[in-house]
Amino acid sequence: MKIDGVHYRSIWLDADGWTVHVFDQTRLPWSLEVLSLGSMEDAARAIRSMQVRGAPLIGACAAYGVALAMREDASDEALERACTTLAATRPTAVNLHWAIGEMRAALQNRPRAERVAAAYRRAGEICDEDAAINEAIGRNALPLIEEAAAQKTCGGRVNILTHCNAGWIATVDWGTALAPIYRAHDAGIPVHVWVDETRPRSQGALLTAWELGKHGVPHTVIADNAGGHLMQHGKVDLCLVGTDRVTARGDVANKIGTYLKALAARDNGVPFWVCLPHTTIDWSVQDGIAEIPIEERDGREMTEIAGRDESGALRRVRVVAEGSAAANPAFDVTPARLVSGLVTERGRCAASAEGLSSLYPERAGR
Amino acid sequence: MKIDGVHYRSIWLDADGWTVHVFDQTRLPWSLEVLSLGSMEDAARAIRSMQVRGAPLIGACAAYGVALAMREDASDEALERACTTLAATRPTAVNLHWAIGEMRAALQNRPRAERVAAAYRRAGEICDEDAAINEAIGRNALPLIEEAAAQKTCGGRVNILTHCNAGWIATVDWGTALAPIYRAHDAGIPVHVWVDETRPRSQGALLTAWELGKHGVPHTVIADNAGGHLMQHGKVDLCLVGTDRVTARGDVANKIGTYLKALAARDNGVPFWVCLPHTTIDWSVQDGIAEIPIEERDGREMTEIAGRDESGALRRVRVVAEGSAAANPAFDVTPARLVSGLVTERGRCAASAEGLSSLYPERAGR
Repeated sequence: MKIDGVHYRSIWLDADGWTVHVFDQTRLPWSLEVLSLGSMEDAARAIRSMQVRGAPLIGACAAYGVALAMREDASDEALERACTTLAATRPTAVNLHWAIGEMRAALQNRPRAERVAAAYRRAGEICDEDAAINEAIGRNALPLIEEAAAQKTCGGRVNILTHCNAGWIATVDWGTALAPIYRAHDAGIPVHVWVDETRPRSQGALLTAWELGKHGVPHTVIADNAGGHLMQHGKVDLCLVGTDRVTARGDVANKIGTYLKALAARDNGVPFWVCLPHTTIDWSVQDGIAEIPIEERDGREMTEIAGRDESGALRRVRVVAEGSAAANPAFDVTPARLVSGLVTERGRCAASAEGLSSLYPERAGR
Repeated sequence: MKIDGVHYRSIWLDADGWTVHVFDQTRLPWSLEVLSLGSMEDAARAIRSMQVRGAPLIGACAAYGVALAMREDASDEALERACTTLAATRPTAVNLHWAIGEMRAALQNRPRAERVAAAYRRAGEICDEDAAINEAIGRNALPLIEEAAAQKTCGGRVNILTHCNAGWIATVDWGTALAPIYRAHDAGIPVHVWVDETRPRSQGALLTAWELGKHGVPHTVIADNAGGHLMQHGKVDLCLVGTDRVTARGDVANKIGTYLKALAARDNGVPFWVCLPHTTIDWSVQDGIAEIPIEERDGREMTEIAGRDESGALRRVRVVAEGSAAANPAFDVTPARLVSGLVTERGRCAASAEGLSSLYPERAGR
């Protein structure tokens, strides 16, 4: 995607052929800073600290993390250590485990001398595949926006609500939930996005708003509290969100608060669609609420917030009464019954075992 | 209620007998500053700027605003002007209009020479009535907490979720939704409160957390996004909220985001109760979603946030990407069908025309 007219991916290799570059997402939107990852530990730290975030991008970054580990030590023990360390960085997103599994499969039973080249090759493929997958998701989800536009009288704009950030910065390119929005906007369909702030880390207000602004897509930031009210008053035509893990029966783990928007969408007859690459499907899990581990992050993400003061400096301020503790569950699970449908690189389907099996027959019955 | 052991009301007269004192709620919890209101315009400004907030307290403050106006000019014209100015400060809460109506009734057709004394007398009564009403609400809602406690094994604590601030600082004393919580805590029932942050103005994180902390009630601040997840996992036994306006059929206008919590409570079988004085009931309105005006506040309340920096200074920082606009609807309406019941000074009832008529038979059929 483009920033001020220049095309970027969110992860790429340096000209040296091995150093990995990403944008430091904890600095966005205030400054666009490139982070250089020179070791597996750099990659793990970037994921853990959310300098790199977004389920698909975490997967890509972990893949390069394995490659960086191989460069230092291509032994079986180092491979195992890298996989274990990277897998432990975040508990909820499943793409991370998928990418690590891909890297392990590409490297084990291969001579050590070939492992560095093989690791960089497979990590590069994972990135290219992710970009292609997201482009396809955008293509497959576009009809949802076109249908909403067709129901508008007088060419009124289509109002889409999204939660957190499922944009190009959360993936290698295009994004998942934002991919069809970019595509619709570029095709001249008038779209407007309600951007949930997404407390506590404000990925909506900081990252989604920044992405959409840089691409010129009309949008308005709202409190996470506001979406239900807007839906009650007919101001939302469609909800589009990404996800960190989808179970085999269609339950959707995504940023905390997604479940509340799905409830409101159901209560007001607003379609609620989830966009994902196949790498986000966890075929081993059925009941998302009972089975998906939900990351509990530091309470200081709630009690303190960073922003830009009038002088332009970034400052961290306390926004909760002194002495009060905070809890910070980072994800919730939206039951499949509240999801209108799923959009993947292969097309659209119901959020159900049958729906997913229809798109991925090779997994059916396994 | 008490702050560090000293009893306060949230509005009181100075020793001079006419200046009105309130706490500046825009300075809480960082400092406890008393604001002196010496004119009707001072009172109107304090309400408009939310230095004074909370539906019952707004009513009490507006009543004293009329008294302050009479002190300057006791004419019919001045009375009308004061009522009009004060009524225009906030559009959603109905207590404001109730209190102004009470003052008008107490003053019109009365000789000008008596109006100042009559106005202060009626405003004082409104305050005393509010304190007594809220004490009764606490008594009437306490069984909800006792019932939840009785269902706990091993004396486990009762987890109560609340949204925004319906505590003593939002009323003259006691609070509405927090009144039974203080009462239960004082009675030795182990309670713990999940405090919704309540963006954009963070009345939960700033005011409710401060109140509960000062009184020693265990509590944890959470993002507005988190309540649904906590309910899915059995971590909420009861939701208690206040309200700014209840319609004759039981629809509930309250701080933006209340509706989302009511949806989650219904989806998870968690009781969702609303606490209110009779002054919050708008008998002239049936359909809350269609008929209650929802205040749209300045988008800067979303894009900027004030907090305390590491040096202890209050600072305002921008927390939304530059160039992105924000919308800021301040209230939403929870349909009666999602409300387990209402608690008033007269008891508990269903959120319905029948329920309200059973508690207020003198209003039935009017």
